[in-house]
Amino acid sequence: MTRAAVLSAGSWGTTFAKVLADAGCDVALFARRPELAKAITEDGENKDYLPGIRLPAAIRTTADPAEALVDADIVVLSIPSQSLRDNLAEWAPLLPPEASLLSLMKGIELGSTKRMSEVICEVTGAGPDRVAALSGPNLAREIAEEQPAATVIACPDTDRAEALQAACHTVYFRPYTNPDLVGCELGGAVKNVIALAAGVAEGLGFGDNTRASLITRGLAETARLGLALGAELTTFAGLAGLGDLVATCSSPLSRNRTFGEKLGRGMTVEQVQESTKQTAEGVKSCRSVLDLARAHGVDVPITEAVVRVCHEGESPKNLVREIMSREAKPE
Amino acid sequence: MTRAAVLSAGSWGTTFAKVLADAGCDVALFARRPELAKAITEDGENKDYLPGIRLPAAIRTTADPAEALVDADIVVLSIPSQSLRDNLAEWAPLLPPEASLLSLMKGIELGSTKRMSEVICEVTGAGPDRVAALSGPNLAREIAEEQPAATVIACPDTDRAEALQAACHTVYFRPYTNPDLVGCELGGAVKNVIALAAGVAEGLGFGDNTRASLITRGLAETARLGLALGAELTTFAGLAGLGDLVATCSSPLSRNRTFGEKLGRGMTVEQVQESTKQTAEGVKSCRSVLDLARAHGVDVPITEAVVRVCHEGESPKNLVREIMSREAKPE
Repeated sequence: MTRAAVLSAGSWGTTFAKVLADAGCDVALFARRPELAKAITEDGENKDYLPGIRLPAAIRTTADPAEALVDADIVVLSIPSQSLRDNLAEWAPLLPPEASLLSLMKGIELGSTKRMSEVICEVTGAGPDRVAALSGPNLAREIAEEQPAATVIACPDTDRAEALQAACHTVYFRPYTNPDLVGCELGGAVKNVIALAAGVAEGLGFGDNTRASLITRGLAETARLGLALGAELTTFAGLAGLGDLVATCSSPLSRNRTFGEKLGRGMTVEQVQESTKQTAEGVKSCRSVLDLARAHGVDVPITEAVVRVCHEGESPKNLVREIMSREAKPE
Repeated sequence: MTRAAVLSAGSWGTTFAKVLADAGCDVALFARRPELAKAITEDGENKDYLPGIRLPAAIRTTADPAEALVDADIVVLSIPSQSLRDNLAEWAPLLPPEASLLSLMKGIELGSTKRMSEVICEVTGAGPDRVAALSGPNLAREIAEEQPAATVIACPDTDRAEALQAACHTVYFRPYTNPDLVGCELGGAVKNVIALAAGVAEGLGFGDNTRASLITRGLAETARLGLALGAELTTFAGLAGLGDLVATCSSPLSRNRTFGEKLGRGMTVEQVQESTKQTAEGVKSCRSVLDLARAHGVDVPITEAVVRVCHEGESPKNLVREIMSREAKPE
């Protein structure tokens, strides 16, 4: 039986622990706070991050990372992007040396502009063939409710990708494999930024035409950057590119879209941050995506506008106007 | 001053007449029913199809096609796809011989499997350089409310495309040009079919993950067919492909999505047809899209499923399951 360790017990981590258990894995779920680990164990439910969802009995929840990681074949990492390096440095000595390391994270590290898989390799010393990323139109709540969803598991090592695919394939969750790790990770990171912009437009009262235009240009911006980084164009047309972007920009369940919507309605960045306890990755990642784009000479106008709104005090009102009125006559 | 004739006064035709007038054209709007033409003239508003929107004074509404078409530089066609051939046969003798013929229609003719521009050339004898199509994320109601929107004007003749672009460019409506007429028309026609499927999923209670997966696979299906017909792949990644598809699949204003949603909730095709007075193009076009795909040996699984539900009595419940569970392991 495949042993999987999921770190940690946020809404997506908890949901993915359920997927793995439903697919037949023996699953350890790590929660940093001992009181949360205890509550999940006692309740059979993660009332903080996934209320109302019954968790399978095959999930053991623990606040001890060593206990979670012992003998794991698959280590699933699902924590805020900007905390990965510090957390992983602490966990690295506990990682089984042959385990596959699967990232559910969607962000680019500030300062280093590294993708999550790059940070994982750097901190753990694992070779790139041991690291994979999972990305797609995967709003956690819907998957926890067992609505049908598809996703992409990206790993340069095809055998490992297929083993991971088998480990999380259930009736309601269907993973596809793709060797393009760079494209999948980039699609996931940039979509949070575009979703912020889509949320701002929503908050300002704009409708579906505007959102669809933002999605279209946002995907073009992501693909331009991806090509410069060596990704495959087809990845952006697939579930980890277009699919994830559309789901995130459309759903009221998306934190980044919701964050943007509150900005569009007139709250300040600080006010929105105080009002929510979950992470909106795009607020931080927009700066690292912009740094990455500048380092590669790629034009990313939506990301630029989001950085100005989130970090430079520009009024959200200008964001949509700027994006919709850019001069570019032939499409 | 550019003279434009718009035939006829449905919600999109009326909205586009307003766009042309706001861009400075002298506009004649044709309404087949004399009582509708009279009401629009007296009310300064199309209460049947665009209630609550004040129309510019520069629009003259008439029920006489000859009066509408006299001296027109631009003839805009916006009628149900399957009525185009008969209507146009009647109007053809009235068309000024040098006028640009701009299609706002999104469908494929049943039986002939011809695109709207092909039907226009055939019926009027106009050369293909005189015919253009306009397509993009353009929900009529939002544009009528002057929310910012972008669109694509596709015409093999670049000069004509630019003249049309200038004729309808306003503060809130931004047209881009593209020489790929085939791709733009195909994107518009197939998106109605995909939107029907998205509506069915919605009606059955599925959420944003499922819709995003349907959009992703729907665009792939459209692009496969487009490539077989000689279209450019980039068109499908743009506003007339992805943009239009996302807007139509997401908006409660979309007739095709709404039609599908009612099917998903358990109404029969006949019941839905009786409950609505507007045309859901996809119900008819799905069959001609499928015929076109078969003639070119292209696999279009979502279109096939929509045909089975709309015309062969298959339960909508099977549609989502079939689409989400297709075997295709590497993406």
